Amino acid sequence: MNLSCPIEHHHGDTILQAHGGGGRLMAELIQSVFAEAFVGLGLQADADSAALDIAGPVAFTTDSFVVKPIFFPGGDIGRLAVFGTVNDLAMRGATPQAISLGLILEEGLPMAKLRRIIESIATAAREADVQIVTGDTKVVERGKCDGIYINTSGIGPLNHGSDIHPRSVRPGDALILSGDLGRHATAVMASREGIAFETNIESDLCSLAAPIAAVLASDVEVHCLRDLTRGGLASAANEIANSANCSLSLNAQAIPVTDAVRGASELLGLDPLYLANEGRFLAIVAPESADSAICELRNAGCEACLIGTVNESPRGIVTLTSELGATRVLDLLRGEQLPRIC
Amino acid sequence: MNLSCPIEHHHGDTILQAHGGGGRLMAELIQSVFAEAFVGLGLQADADSAALDIAGPVAFTTDSFVVKPIFFPGGDIGRLAVFGTVNDLAMRGATPQAISLGLILEEGLPMAKLRRIIESIATAAREADVQIVTGDTKVVERGKCDGIYINTSGIGPLNHGSDIHPRSVRPGDALILSGDLGRHATAVMASREGIAFETNIESDLCSLAAPIAAVLASDVEVHCLRDLTRGGLASAANEIANSANCSLSLNAQAIPVTDAVRGASELLGLDPLYLANEGRFLAIVAPESADSAICELRNAGCEACLIGTVNESPRGIVTLTSELGATRVLDLLRGEQLPRIC
Repeated sequence: MNLSCPIEHHHGDTILQAHGGGGRLMAELIQSVFAEAFVGLGLQADADSAALDIAGPVAFTTDSFVVKPIFFPGGDIGRLAVFGTVNDLAMRGATPQAISLGLILEEGLPMAKLRRIIESIATAAREADVQIVTGDTKVVERGKCDGIYINTSGIGPLNHGSDIHPRSVRPGDALILSGDLGRHATAVMASREGIAFETNIESDLCSLAAPIAAVLASDVEVHCLRDLTRGGLASAANEIANSANCSLSLNAQAIPVTDAVRGASELLGLDPLYLANEGRFLAIVAPESADSAICELRNAGCEACLIGTVNESPRGIVTLTSELGATRVLDLLRGEQLPRIC
Repeated sequence: MNLSCPIEHHHGDTILQAHGGGGRLMAELIQSVFAEAFVGLGLQADADSAALDIAGPVAFTTDSFVVKPIFFPGGDIGRLAVFGTVNDLAMRGATPQAISLGLILEEGLPMAKLRRIIESIATAAREADVQIVTGDTKVVERGKCDGIYINTSGIGPLNHGSDIHPRSVRPGDALILSGDLGRHATAVMASREGIAFETNIESDLCSLAAPIAAVLASDVEVHCLRDLTRGGLASAANEIANSANCSLSLNAQAIPVTDAVRGASELLGLDPLYLANEGRFLAIVAPESADSAICELRNAGCEACLIGTVNESPRGIVTLTSELGATRVLDLLRGEQLPRIC
């Protein structure tokens, strides 16, 4: 350490503009923080691009993460950034192989927070068995970011034969939900607003790669998979109904929501069907595969259940049948009920 | 348009939180702005991941862009985001095939600015012959971003046989620079600070895919390629010297810098060797390929020239010999001379 440099003594404590400048401090950051945490994860920091052995075809996806607060019950922005992209690959039937890591850091971000996030990213990548092969770090002035924003992009081989996509959805297909709804958004929001509910609600954030791999390895005929992030189940169902030009009919009684989430939602005027999840998905499978899909998912640790069916009409529309038997249209919201939850 | 909604009349003018919420406004934004601009570019907006036919192995890279101002002489953040990632793929000897587009937008960003940037992205992608297959949009509150930040990640087949990487660099290799230095950083900085130089300086921003493809298709024995972005030629040379465990000797007299950039740099106390470029690269080739490489690059429109050689020692060190024959070590800077230039 060069003690003659007047601001050198700061550089262990917080992020400086110079950490994003392509010079010595950036090299030190990459070496002492990233390379150290990512040992064994395949980081190729010494070239402009990483080289990967993949026999095509491949799935390719991207997601930016701006969640506030960056640490929340059940996770943090780093774990979210890894699993978010891993899950998007899994939803196409791909095996997550490698992700990139693009960081935008705010000047003044405590180095301890960055280290904690980077370690969380490394842990999540090991859990999901995905490599972190390439990255980029930019630093912006104070007040031009909110601590840290993360982009992850991911690629993985599409080694499953069938076309897992809304266009494969057919009337008669079964709608299977992988677990209870609304915990991620509720946990983040409660944490942000400093609201303590009687029951502590933790995010449902998790990697979906393993349960999806289990279903795809079985004889289940999977037509479409969709994780229920921004906009929740209602928005995902609407997008699929629209793309597939079918109708999705949901049975409200069959959709699991914990008492804690239901209570918090009622208190806050939110509808759990529109709340973001980060570890829940909808699997649309051939009718004869429904029981087998539920069984495979339960064996893989998901509390899967049948929540509805695909119908031919009304085309592009999602309907919800209530506990009392009344059926209504479940529309897209204008925006999201809560901002900055992912 | 639903006129009964009290804030609906805003939504044509500026970005709202709801544009990032996974609901109706986000769907409209994707359809009316992105899908329309990206016609023919392969956007797969209706699934969590895009599916691509690539015959492996592949190169994979990521870069975030936070340049300020977002429009500058010779380019804008959108064009920069496309060519920046295209160039990183080209530097590994890969053919740029597809990029992702991750947008972080500030609430209140004028829709006209966003449209201009998206159109610029589409134009740049067509020029570089790269597809935009997947994307993501997040919106953060006013004051939590600087208008727009963009991440692009890219993939492309590595169909060139040799290993283009610092580890392939050998003593005796020739250092070839593709053109004059310092225009991008100077143009951005002048634009940011409202400084008008006598000569108008434009960014050197351009796609390097075509000249690299020309060299790789020739009989030139290419060992390493590096684009000279953050930290400029001096930092890139240091990174390579360090990775390759060799010495790079540069001849100051041979390095082209325009009078306009030299004048602006002197005025501002900057060294052009450390200034960021967005359309310049260093090619390290076998000594017997030097003339042929220069010839190929000139035919492809680059003002390429020989600027030095690789030596065995002093290992990990870059030296610069001045016009007067004095030789000094050209070290890494601590950070960058100018922040937010890419």
